[in-house]
Amino acid sequence: MCGIFGVHGDDKAAALAQLGLFALQHRGQESAGIVAVNGAEATSIRRMGLVSEAIDATELEALHGNIAIGHTRYSTAGSSTLENAQPVFVHLKVGHVALAHNGNLTNADVIRDGLEASGSIFGSTMDSEVIVHQLAKATPGKPEEMLAEALRGFEGSYSIIVTIGRTLLAARDPRGWRPLVMGQRDGATVFASETCALDIVGARFVRDVEPGEIIAVDEHGMRSIKPFTVAPQNRCVFEYVYFARPDSTIFGGSVDRARRALGRALAKEAPAPGADLVFAVPDSSNAAALGYAEESGLRLEHALIRNHYIGRTFIQPTQEGRTSKVRVKYNPVREVLQGQSVVMIDDSIVRGTTTRGLVALVRAAGAREVHMRVASPPITGPCYYGIDIPSKRELIAASQTVPEIAKTIGVDSLAYLSLDSMLASMPNGPEGFCHACFSGKYPVQPPRGFEESRAGRDE
Amino acid sequence: MCGIFGVHGDDKAAALAQLGLFALQHRGQESAGIVAVNGAEATSIRRMGLVSEAIDATELEALHGNIAIGHTRYSTAGSSTLENAQPVFVHLKVGHVALAHNGNLTNADVIRDGLEASGSIFGSTMDSEVIVHQLAKATPGKPEEMLAEALRGFEGSYSIIVTIGRTLLAARDPRGWRPLVMGQRDGATVFASETCALDIVGARFVRDVEPGEIIAVDEHGMRSIKPFTVAPQNRCVFEYVYFARPDSTIFGGSVDRARRALGRALAKEAPAPGADLVFAVPDSSNAAALGYAEESGLRLEHALIRNHYIGRTFIQPTQEGRTSKVRVKYNPVREVLQGQSVVMIDDSIVRGTTTRGLVALVRAAGAREVHMRVASPPITGPCYYGIDIPSKRELIAASQTVPEIAKTIGVDSLAYLSLDSMLASMPNGPEGFCHACFSGKYPVQPPRGFEESRAGRDE
Amino acid sequence: MCGIFGVHGDDKAAALAQLGLFALQHRGQESAGIVAVNGAEATSIRRMGLVSEAIDATELEALHGNIAIGHTRYSTAGSSTLENAQPVFVHLKVGHVALAHNGNLTNADVIRDGLEASGSIFGSTMDSEVIVHQLAKATPGKPEEMLAEALRGFEGSYSIIVTIGRTLLAARDPRGWRPLVMGQRDGATVFASETCALDIVGARFVRDVEPGEIIAVDEHGMRSIKPFTVAPQNRCVFEYVYFARPDSTIFGGSVDRARRALGRALAKEAPAPGADLVFAVPDSSNAAALGYAEESGLRLEHALIRNHYIGRTFIQPTQEGRTSKVRVKYNPVREVLQGQSVVMIDDSIVRGTTTRGLVALVRAAGAREVHMRVASPPITGPCYYGIDIPSKRELIAASQTVPEIAKTIGVDSLAYLSLDSMLASMPNGPEGFCHACFSGKYPVQPPRGFEESRAGRDE
Amino acid sequence: MCGIFGVHGDDKAAALAQLGLFALQHRGQESAGIVAVNGAEATSIRRMGLVSEAIDATELEALHGNIAIGHTRYSTAGSSTLENAQPVFVHLKVGHVALAHNGNLTNADVIRDGLEASGSIFGSTMDSEVIVHQLAKATPGKPEEMLAEALRGFEGSYSIIVTIGRTLLAARDPRGWRPLVMGQRDGATVFASETCALDIVGARFVRDVEPGEIIAVDEHGMRSIKPFTVAPQNRCVFEYVYFARPDSTIFGGSVDRARRALGRALAKEAPAPGADLVFAVPDSSNAAALGYAEESGLRLEHALIRNHYIGRTFIQPTQEGRTSKVRVKYNPVREVLQGQSVVMIDDSIVRGTTTRGLVALVRAAGAREVHMRVASPPITGPCYYGIDIPSKRELIAASQTVPEIAKTIGVDSLAYLSLDSMLASMPNGPEGFCHACFSGKYPVQPPRGFEESRAGRDE
Repeated sequence: MCGIFGVHGDDKAAALAQLGLFALQHRGQESAGIVAVNGAEATSIRRMGLVSEAIDATELEALHGNIAIGHTRYSTAGSSTLENAQPVFVHLKVGHVALAHNGNLTNADVIRDGLEASGSIFGSTMDSEVIVHQLAKATPGKPEEMLAEALRGFEGSYSIIVTIGRTLLAARDPRGWRPLVMGQRDGATVFASETCALDIVGARFVRDVEPGEIIAVDEHGMRSIKPFTVAPQNRCVFEYVYFARPDSTIFGGSVDRARRALGRALAKEAPAPGADLVFAVPDSSNAAALGYAEESGLRLEHALIRNHYIGRTFIQPTQEGRTSKVRVKYNPVREVLQGQSVVMIDDSIVRGTTTRGLVALVRAAGAREVHMRVASPPITGPCYYGIDIPSKRELIAASQTVPEIAKTIGVDSLAYLSLDSMLASMPNGPEGFCHACFSGKYPVQPPRGFEESRAGRDE
Repeated sequence: MCGIFGVHGDDKAAALAQLGLFALQHRGQESAGIVAVNGAEATSIRRMGLVSEAIDATELEALHGNIAIGHTRYSTAGSSTLENAQPVFVHLKVGHVALAHNGNLTNADVIRDGLEASGSIFGSTMDSEVIVHQLAKATPGKPEEMLAEALRGFEGSYSIIVTIGRTLLAARDPRGWRPLVMGQRDGATVFASETCALDIVGARFVRDVEPGEIIAVDEHGMRSIKPFTVAPQNRCVFEYVYFARPDSTIFGGSVDRARRALGRALAKEAPAPGADLVFAVPDSSNAAALGYAEESGLRLEHALIRNHYIGRTFIQPTQEGRTSKVRVKYNPVREVLQGQSVVMIDDSIVRGTTTRGLVALVRAAGAREVHMRVASPPITGPCYYGIDIPSKRELIAASQTVPEIAKTIGVDSLAYLSLDSMLASMPNGPEGFCHACFSGKYPVQPPRGFEESRAGRDE
Repeated sequence: MCGIFGVHGDDKAAALAQLGLFALQHRGQESAGIVAVNGAEATSIRRMGLVSEAIDATELEALHGNIAIGHTRYSTAGSSTLENAQPVFVHLKVGHVALAHNGNLTNADVIRDGLEASGSIFGSTMDSEVIVHQLAKATPGKPEEMLAEALRGFEGSYSIIVTIGRTLLAARDPRGWRPLVMGQRDGATVFASETCALDIVGARFVRDVEPGEIIAVDEHGMRSIKPFTVAPQNRCVFEYVYFARPDSTIFGGSVDRARRALGRALAKEAPAPGADLVFAVPDSSNAAALGYAEESGLRLEHALIRNHYIGRTFIQPTQEGRTSKVRVKYNPVREVLQGQSVVMIDDSIVRGTTTRGLVALVRAAGAREVHMRVASPPITGPCYYGIDIPSKRELIAASQTVPEIAKTIGVDSLAYLSLDSMLASMPNGPEGFCHACFSGKYPVQPPRGFEESRAGRDE
Repeated sequence: MCGIFGVHGDDKAAALAQLGLFALQHRGQESAGIVAVNGAEATSIRRMGLVSEAIDATELEALHGNIAIGHTRYSTAGSSTLENAQPVFVHLKVGHVALAHNGNLTNADVIRDGLEASGSIFGSTMDSEVIVHQLAKATPGKPEEMLAEALRGFEGSYSIIVTIGRTLLAARDPRGWRPLVMGQRDGATVFASETCALDIVGARFVRDVEPGEIIAVDEHGMRSIKPFTVAPQNRCVFEYVYFARPDSTIFGGSVDRARRALGRALAKEAPAPGADLVFAVPDSSNAAALGYAEESGLRLEHALIRNHYIGRTFIQPTQEGRTSKVRVKYNPVREVLQGQSVVMIDDSIVRGTTTRGLVALVRAAGAREVHMRVASPPITGPCYYGIDIPSKRELIAASQTVPEIAKTIGVDSLAYLSLDSMLASMPNGPEGFCHACFSGKYPVQPPRGFEESRAGRDE
């Protein structure tokens, strides 16, 4: 998963991009980068780390120009290198080209093989670079038409923000897998993965970039084309469940409202009679827990405090269980939990190891009974379209039944939200979503050898 | 304000200290340091920055020994230098001495003048260093008696953790201003500012270090002395209101319970009839908002999302109001606020600038009415005892009445909790607190020229 | 100018490459890089700065494999970026390819234009990258044949060391512009720009890579091909005059011997009757000064001490002349110079500014007369074949006669060595050299717009 | 050994100090520091590393004021920490005090014990800090008199540059062990260890600070006092032999002239009949080799090339002898050495390991016979007065006879200069030198436990 941002028409474009990336940091923390376009010149910063580490204030001031795009990259195993940091930034015969991509091109390897066979050279292992190579081979013309030509053969998901010379472009794949929004701020046009990045720069939300749409902005104004065949919608339901920020609006609906609805549906479908209180695993489940409390009438409590200061590495001094990673990140509030029968709400369970650690913490703090309620269905398969869900063998729900999971994580009861209820809770109705990781219904062929290569990492 | 931690009796003492400092990071983010004692040897790390930045994993492994103390320092203007990072670490004729201090010695400058006049040399501008100089002049004897002799002349607040040779000591001033707790973990003894730092290392809370008590731990066991005249208690009420972590127990009471009680009292004393919902300024006011919601029956909402990724510096690209610091740190949830009459809960108001910015954000997100409720009284004076409350001229409530403040911050109504209600909400009754910043009743003379020097900074 | 190094057949290949680069540091100080090949895997380090700054010991240990190549890059204006650091390192369909280049391809821009027009993407502004693109398009086959095919259209100078999959290759352009030597060390084969890099790894010099030769080394042994039409030799005379290290053997002759011969020839051609002593501008002129002293019978002195500790940046505190860059780098020995008539030897004069500063220092230290003798002819034109000689308008001898230069630099007399004498001093006779920068006889067409673009930088 | 520098009366004092430290870098490469005094304010930079690494340009610009002192520190085992970096910088009741020290106080530990017993606290393990403590206890008065009082009890060597408030002071111990010179530059007064640091800032040499003299400079002018009993001179002969830069004048004589005289005396006392040529171990022996060549009539050659780019750490890839540290630092010129009988000149031999490595290199490069000539006597004892000569057990001449050393280092013949000839070569006659490391005649008692503690390091 990644966060993307672009702005056209502000003299401080790069500084706005930095702000936008701060707001999109939750979508990727491995690397960050900004490319600014100043007439025929273009400059870039790309570094490993958080935006606050990667984007130096002095360097940022040197990124001149009224167009800028930015990218935050999620850490995915095996490819965590500076070469793979984005935006991709090259010089083509049509001028400088920069590209920031959120998504996963499922047939990128096939196209890449063809390009390599005809002598193209790749500097990274990213599928995103393949788009740029196709762009290099596109018929010279209007930037949006060149981009349409370059994108034509790709399958899978892409929300992209691109600069070709002095034109800023935003495009979304025909199935609309990943979100992409457009805003205005005085004379400037802003594109971003989520509306929270419009808010931070003081831009007003205008509309979504539509599935299959390419929007181009330059000094002559804005142009929109829809060059691709209409396809069924496959918006990622997991964006609403976990990934996006609660203060964002994506796919035309509020993330906070979606999560509140999930929590309420969960309370209806899986009540916890006899429980004393309900609490969230902070912060991603806060809204769902609030919904659960409202619907169930149970008392809401803050029973787990999350430490936001933990760096990405710390020495684990002694044996697991004592000072595990979970304990370093979360601390239970003993006075809240002591002697209580509690409902613990999480948005989802992936491997189950964190959940198991949390349950142990909660019990050690005195909880009498722990009833786990999950605001989405069991995750049974990986995602091939841009979210870093681990391979099948790491997913607890791929190999264990719900009662087995309950035993593994050590709870008194466990219930997941059903697929139907999840979809029914979505802001604009249950249609048009990809829920493959929950349902196994993959709308587009996985990339060649995808699961195998990930499984290989487990040995 | 600072966080302090000490452990005796664990071979991984320094690694435990690092964990403890992670849990105490909220008490100080300017610098961090650890000193480890290994027999007659002692080694240290001290750096500017967060624990995750200051304490390098490789260096940490080189801190051998079964005794360690650590310190996180709060950024106070004018003295943010490495020289002032703690623990203070020196070699005296009795061996290595390290000291971590939380508090403020109000007569340190007088004692320092005397020491300098007789030829002592100071390496920092910290009052804490004066204790070490007094220790250097103490009559050789048992470590706890030397420490008692060194501390005798000091006024003001101190919770300290000290190593003298191979002995670990913890001491708290007779008025008990700052918290200090003791825990056990297998054979090891742990001291920390708050219990959340016991939790993170898996230590069991035993009891508070008592006001006026000095506890010494060495290979022969534990010894406690109470060498000072009994004084009235002056526990800092602001620790409960704002400073400590909600998952901590300090002064014998739960911080979470205290804040919930403050919220409930606030709802009784200052209801908001006609309001649609209540929300917290996250994260420090979460518990008070929950209390307010419970008591008032108003719907609790998460209306502000806080961004934890913002680095300590970012370039402010354009004019205030658009992309202010407040907007970068907080984002309102439009769907929650749109058209609503809202109650915004904060634990306290200091300068009023952040509050003003938040109110503007909340209104811009569509709130119809904003009713501000503050879970403590107006802050009218600085703190001379260890909390970095700014000088009088920066405190909004020092020069404005409540109606004036309401106007300044732009709310429809504003109410603070009364002093009596605040004290009545404290876990073990209203007695024995310092509330000088709220009430102006300073139990101990301020340090010479304190306010003047701070006022000087304003010009 | 750059330094290149390669080794095949040693398990510590990357560590040997680091040593080799230490010895070739004088050929390039802008950036350094190493690529190591371990079977089908390959890893790299590339950074700005000196080898000691760029190649971290811990990272170096992670460069596994028994093949490694390295590169030190000279700082040339306008392109000092990490993207331009070498070795070029990409993945092609034939496997990993790494390339280290010393030289200048005079028609690279023409070939690059063609490649870009057909959709190739370049990640750097280096001519060296064009070779890799041609390699990507070469007919699959033996690595040496693919390299031959890739190199076929290029004009200009190249000594290159390349890895294609598990094969190490070394190649030199048909005119033999830049040096390239081969050595042996137990079972390992070593290639390097100069023999001093063989010495530092304990390798025995075997022979030069011959002009127009491609040598391939893999697990089956060594193969040599000469795929190009024989061309007249154009070995760079400036390598002997200034660039190479005196302890190296290049083009089949000792650099030290060459410089001694230049000094002796200079003494014959341009004696300084009446002078008291002779001294070198250290360190590059030491050998020439020794030759001049031997031939002339004048007393050799060390009159200038060079400071090797000066970092690349220092603040210039006051007005020029007082603490100029020259003064920071060199200090005269007053006791040697006081009242003397001196002969100052330098290998060459480029802009004349350093020389002028040195003459002023020498006079200020008491020299009565300063007779400048230069061990090469006046430099009147830029180099298009790999040495960073500035544009014509910056070359003092391009616009001033020898008497004018003497006046400009402030000497009592000035003499250069003649072109014929310089060539006659070369180890293996005067034939087969490029001396275009001295004579204006450019054996190969300059690249399109070369001088213009450089001239443009002056405005 | 250390380098010290001070300037009074220039608005760019800190920038001049940086230049001065560049020129004194050879006297200490472990750490560097500058303190600048601006009226009642004073600021400092101190870091580990070379001047170019330790003194950042931006930070330097923040060191305001017209007084500055600087220090470069030599790496001595066991105490290489930032705490020990100089200048010592503290605030006393008389104002800011900064001190830069070159030398060794042989009774510092005794005085320190007394100070610690009376409650003083030390922040470093340096003897230099003891002076500051004594200064803190001195009777308030004129700065020079306070400094005299502070210095009164000390034995051993000290050349110091000090600031007390707004006064710059320079002092040299009564025996004059270490050099210290004074210069003028417009209205500014400059003090430095050697004249090369006057040269680099464009200051004119005025005179030595005399043994036992204290010079004070402030806005009222310059004052000199000689408060100590006259003592016999003990100028360090090793400064002339090895330590000082050849372009410096110290102790009233030229270092270059001294070394030339040593070389000539060596040629007379220890000729090498039948040898073909003579060469130096660069760079410290260049002048002695020149002297030897002049006197002997042997041909001078540059047979060893020194690499100045080697960083302080490099991975040693394989077995000793192949790629030893010596080989990385020096490379022989084969064409010079092949088949020759050579005289190799070094200024001194300490452990013998480098010499042994060099002899092996020279032989491997083809030398037929190697005759080693050393321009000073055998070093048989450590230095207690400020030079980091290793402990007795590491000194090759402390346990081996000259014939044994010849065998150990592998030469055909070996001769050292005699003590008498060395002293006779000194610029102003043989009297008034300390030559304890050569002769064993220690003029002042070694510090308590000195040799033992160093010997302890060997186990």
